[in-house]
Amino acid sequence: VCVLVGGVGGAKLAHGLAALLPPENLAVVVNTGDDFTHYGLAISPDLDTVMYTLAGVVDTANGWGVGGDTAHMLDMLRAYGETPWFRLGDRDLATHLLRTQALAAGEPLSRVTARLARALGVGPALIPMTDDPVHTVVETREWGALAFQEYFVRHRWQPTVTAIHYEGIERARLSEPAAQAIAGADVLVIAPSNPWLSIGPIVALPGFRTVWAASSAPKIAVTPIVAGAAIKGPAAKLMGELGIEVSAPAVGAIYREWVTGFVYDEQDSAFTLDGVETRALSTVMKTDADRAALAGAVLGWAAERSAHPVG
Amino acid sequence: VCVLVGGVGGAKLAHGLAALLPPENLAVVVNTGDDFTHYGLAISPDLDTVMYTLAGVVDTANGWGVGGDTAHMLDMLRAYGETPWFRLGDRDLATHLLRTQALAAGEPLSRVTARLARALGVGPALIPMTDDPVHTVVETREWGALAFQEYFVRHRWQPTVTAIHYEGIERARLSEPAAQAIAGADVLVIAPSNPWLSIGPIVALPGFRTVWAASSAPKIAVTPIVAGAAIKGPAAKLMGELGIEVSAPAVGAIYREWVTGFVYDEQDSAFTLDGVETRALSTVMKTDADRAALAGAVLGWAAERSAHPVG
Repeated sequence: VCVLVGGVGGAKLAHGLAALLPPENLAVVVNTGDDFTHYGLAISPDLDTVMYTLAGVVDTANGWGVGGDTAHMLDMLRAYGETPWFRLGDRDLATHLLRTQALAAGEPLSRVTARLARALGVGPALIPMTDDPVHTVVETREWGALAFQEYFVRHRWQPTVTAIHYEGIERARLSEPAAQAIAGADVLVIAPSNPWLSIGPIVALPGFRTVWAASSAPKIAVTPIVAGAAIKGPAAKLMGELGIEVSAPAVGAIYREWVTGFVYDEQDSAFTLDGVETRALSTVMKTDADRAALAGAVLGWAAERSAHPVG
Repeated sequence: VCVLVGGVGGAKLAHGLAALLPPENLAVVVNTGDDFTHYGLAISPDLDTVMYTLAGVVDTANGWGVGGDTAHMLDMLRAYGETPWFRLGDRDLATHLLRTQALAAGEPLSRVTARLARALGVGPALIPMTDDPVHTVVETREWGALAFQEYFVRHRWQPTVTAIHYEGIERARLSEPAAQAIAGADVLVIAPSNPWLSIGPIVALPGFRTVWAASSAPKIAVTPIVAGAAIKGPAAKLMGELGIEVSAPAVGAIYREWVTGFVYDEQDSAFTLDGVETRALSTVMKTDADRAALAGAVLGWAAERSAHPVG
């Protein structure tokens, strides 16, 4: 099974899948369009969220960061007169230091990531979408072009979005481990992550369309929009600003060219999509049991649609 | 007043001088031969020790590091399977991150250092001996050539030293602020730091001898050896290994070409040095009052020997 994910929402479904599948049967391909450099550190927010979640060390209240972490380094930065706007926990810093050092030494991000995840006891393959630099840029009415983390964290996704683009995407390539994971999967899943900010950069990568289209596996996307709202983050606000109806069918229409099945939430009304099967499931993941239940239901649906046994 | 210092012992005398002098009348020139890169961070142990001491945030038990600091980043590094051997406190990390980032952006070490020290409220000028890379290398019987921190921290200065050299010294230059501080000083002091590991790199810098010799100010060194032992660190052990008698007169003989006055401890017997005045003072600094008393006595002696008023 290969699942495409962004940050917190995607990490939850990946965690549910990891609870059901033998580790060697799960690959998680993660958005790196959010990656940025802060105080000289190479930071990969989505990779870290997924890694900490799968390692069982995530801060469960936030959904990101290391549980029980402190922020003494940030306190001292403030003593130096700095005004850091991105949360860098003290334990979290070890991840950034090791990654920064490895990238500076020329190690590809996919290799560093695999090494760090393994060291933390993560069984499934944790794979960055690309080893090349891609930067999601959000065009806003108030501030013009903002780097993703400026938009998302510094401005708390409050500016009005007029367009999104992925800087560097045309020179980037789908990472080799991601291509292999997609090509080798019996089931392909798109997690309930933000279609523009999390999944968009992955599917826009040169090399993605070919390997994705070549797969005959069931391809199932899960809606991030439930009852006209996003579970977390700016997905709903963004859709409104981009002039798209904030609804599961509207997300389904966007994913239609990429998937064979689309999961919407039981709270929403049934709908059909041209050429794509739809199914209502309980998609809101508040507990570990919710995650495993959704993962199981998605795998079960895929098994119905596939000649191959799943798992 | 300009004082040449290394780490903990020198920081104490600098602190005593800072308690007596208006900040604009004190410059502290610090050894950077101990500087090294660890986990991609540019670390300047002596600069940090002096800065934290003068800022009043030093860990008073150790004499280095930030008081009350935690080590959560190091704990997480260990979770990744690393075996870090250099203590990097979480608050301390802010210093290393800001310095690393500034050096990478091309800012000279002297400018970064002045900026960081000012931000922490340090009044006296804190000046690295050079803006160029110099690395103290310790040749040992057991392990061959060791980078300074490998010798000092990793091997806890237990290997037997056969020689010391300062890698890169011939391509380095005394920093411009250090040269100005020495040339402009009415009193020049060499702190009770290690003559080979702390003061040695400073006086060996191209440009040092000329500016030092041109000054007609009193030049007073304070012994780091008291009653045949070092107050702290490897000075005594090192002297034995280099075949030098472990005594204040032996240190005085080494400094003879550089100074006009030499301070030994009251616990030791009186002695004379050819061409250099000697004076017994209480040099052991256990309390802040001890530091100020020694600083005051050194300044007082210098005032006796100088036409200029001191302070």
